[in-house]
Amino acid sequence: MSKNFIKPSILPGFMELLPNEQRIFDDIATKILKVYEKNGCYPIDTPVIEKADVLLVKSGGETEKQVYAFQKGKNDLALRFDLTVPFARYVAQHINELEFPFKRYQLGKVYRGERNQRGRYREFYQLDIDVINKDKLSVDNDAWVISLASQAFKEIKLPNYKFQISNRKILSGIFEYLQIENSFETMNLIDKYDKMPTNEFKAELEKLIGEEKSSFINKIMSIDGSSVQIINQLKAFNINETYAEGVNEIARVVKMLDILKVDEKEYDINLKIIRGLDYYTGTVFETKLIGNESYGSICSGGRYDNLAENYTDTVLPGVGISIGLTRLFFVLQEIGFIDTYNLNRSDDFIILPLGDTMDYCSIILDKLLANGSRASIYFDDASLKKKLKYANNLKIQKVIIVGEEEVKNKIVKIKDMLSGEEKIIKIDDL
Amino acid sequence: MSKNFIKPSILPGFMELLPNEQRIFDDIATKILKVYEKNGCYPIDTPVIEKADVLLVKSGGETEKQVYAFQKGKNDLALRFDLTVPFARYVAQHINELEFPFKRYQLGKVYRGERNQRGRYREFYQLDIDVINKDKLSVDNDAWVISLASQAFKEIKLPNYKFQISNRKILSGIFEYLQIENSFETMNLIDKYDKMPTNEFKAELEKLIGEEKSSFINKIMSIDGSSVQIINQLKAFNINETYAEGVNEIARVVKMLDILKVDEKEYDINLKIIRGLDYYTGTVFETKLIGNESYGSICSGGRYDNLAENYTDTVLPGVGISIGLTRLFFVLQEIGFIDTYNLNRSDDFIILPLGDTMDYCSIILDKLLANGSRASIYFDDASLKKKLKYANNLKIQKVIIVGEEEVKNKIVKIKDMLSGEEKIIKIDDL
Repeated sequence: MSKNFIKPSILPGFMELLPNEQRIFDDIATKILKVYEKNGCYPIDTPVIEKADVLLVKSGGETEKQVYAFQKGKNDLALRFDLTVPFARYVAQHINELEFPFKRYQLGKVYRGERNQRGRYREFYQLDIDVINKDKLSVDNDAWVISLASQAFKEIKLPNYKFQISNRKILSGIFEYLQIENSFETMNLIDKYDKMPTNEFKAELEKLIGEEKSSFINKIMSIDGSSVQIINQLKAFNINETYAEGVNEIARVVKMLDILKVDEKEYDINLKIIRGLDYYTGTVFETKLIGNESYGSICSGGRYDNLAENYTDTVLPGVGISIGLTRLFFVLQEIGFIDTYNLNRSDDFIILPLGDTMDYCSIILDKLLANGSRASIYFDDASLKKKLKYANNLKIQKVIIVGEEEVKNKIVKIKDMLSGEEKIIKIDDL
Repeated sequence: MSKNFIKPSILPGFMELLPNEQRIFDDIATKILKVYEKNGCYPIDTPVIEKADVLLVKSGGETEKQVYAFQKGKNDLALRFDLTVPFARYVAQHINELEFPFKRYQLGKVYRGERNQRGRYREFYQLDIDVINKDKLSVDNDAWVISLASQAFKEIKLPNYKFQISNRKILSGIFEYLQIENSFETMNLIDKYDKMPTNEFKAELEKLIGEEKSSFINKIMSIDGSSVQIINQLKAFNINETYAEGVNEIARVVKMLDILKVDEKEYDINLKIIRGLDYYTGTVFETKLIGNESYGSICSGGRYDNLAENYTDTVLPGVGISIGLTRLFFVLQEIGFIDTYNLNRSDDFIILPLGDTMDYCSIILDKLLANGSRASIYFDDASLKKKLKYANNLKIQKVIIVGEEEVKNKIVKIKDMLSGEEKIIKIDDL
């Protein structure tokens, strides 16, 4: 090697897939986007780079440290770290040009300088939907966004997902009622409920808020049964207005989930769900994969009372839902879902010309494309053996070898690489 | 206003669209991507941020100044400024995991700190295809990538595009033959041929290379006629091997374009096409919009002998084609194409519930979605007048108002907002 090569490599924490994996990634993204589009959501696209002061208006501490911020000329710039802040900015900026309620979906890369570890990415796709309205937004929308996630998961045939739904007002009401002062620490502890032994949780909680209050909270937390049973038990407590609002809202969400054909098996009411982010004010939810809970939530969201409060005095309540698509893909690789993902390759053709048969190959190509098939011609010089190996490695299921014999007899020989079966048909019947 | 709001705004030179424009943008992108996918290309996705030394290995001067480069921790990072350098890096890095010839497509945002002016963007989408092979790559692929652009333009019903095709070897051969020393300046001048008066061009060329050589080049440049006629005239000159290679290649490209059903009306042979970038070595092409030539090329590309030479000693010839999608959308807005773009709204429904008819609305929604329609329910409280105005402003073509009457009679009233026509059908017939 007389030349100095630069080693071709990417930064740690960035996902890069091989083409056949990328096709599956794109197939999943496309199917989910199509569900959102079909359900009447509107796409938006915002810059990856924004003014630092606009983007960082709300963040602080941990988030700010993770942000990719830099200068270009005299401007302080930052890469977006989620799609929610840019959405708030977008709505405030275009408020007079948008129709409300505004239902948006957005797929885009976001950036966080996280500590480098397996399954954590510094560049990752988020796929969000949000409904936002002026002044008031019906809680029916909370159920509707969950129903969209349900449709999306059915579309990609994801098994064993289960939404975990709560409403922040229930715990807030109880905290008010119990006059809990260290509510932040208490919320944080409850957030960890599912990750620690029950005994340990009880001991910790007692330490934080005393025996009496702790035992009341544990009573609420241990309410069990079907969604309707849980709601009826919650309704039996007469606590305060905030609590009652929370219970009524979750009751309406459950009723609407039924109306919108989300099966009871697809979700639990789980009062331990908090969602750390402070802008949620009502419905909150996560999604676990049953049997693979350790990977955490694959789809989360909730209700916020006033998203764009830093940009405008118009009150804009909304409800949103976010899928971390890069992380989801990683999890789906880990649990073997990607390995068995069905890309529908039965409609995937390659045409291998032998000799000067390009004209005829092009006629076949045209017909296949017009039928909606995926098809291409192998243009380059190579042995037939090499060409067949190529088709095989790419998992192209149908191979058409075109020699002079085929041209003369106006036939097409289609070999199915999966079954080994060979079919001969007339070109006019293709 | 008691609160200090941050003005919601984005940086200059960044495109942000309203939802209905974004739907058209996405529709155009999706249609083109589908053409590439259907023709057997494979998607790849590379990070927006790469190591600065990997990304900037080849650039210098103008490009390097425009790059968004910054530090994060101890690392020198840069945002990609095109999709070609990352592709070269990708192929070199994954060379043992890819199948060759490798046909890739990629849609992604790239970044250039260009001088701020109308129609120039600092963040813009590129949509590329490339075919790359080890050692040798048939020139048939050059025609094939053009045929894909042709299919893509037909798919989005773009009128009046015309490919301008040349081969660099033709001019290179002539330059060798004429022993032109200042070939860089001469190429640059020829590149500007279409933008200056013929007389001025001739005078400038004469100044650069003298009368005799200039008159020979002008003779070649003025060759006119159909593609076949031009090729026949070019073949009549016996200049040198490089020249002959160029002519033979362009002849094969023209033959293959015919075989691949690209109509002669879709392209010109135009020997003045150079493409500034220095890595092109054979076929080069641009695409003009007839009647709107001043916007420049909307789709360009060409052949390169060895793309990844900075990363590997494997010789990797390829041919690629790039659409600057953000720029294209701007041009299509300017020429009125976007205003009249047909999004097929006849299948776009909104359901407006009156009273407690949500169950029935949901049944209608389900049926519409199952039919492949776009549909949603208006969940929020508002007057019917406001709801109808909402549908109208969003250009949702079909409105279904559901009152108790409809529920009782098991009917659905569909109002076409475009024609004003109202249709009543039984719910079972929906």
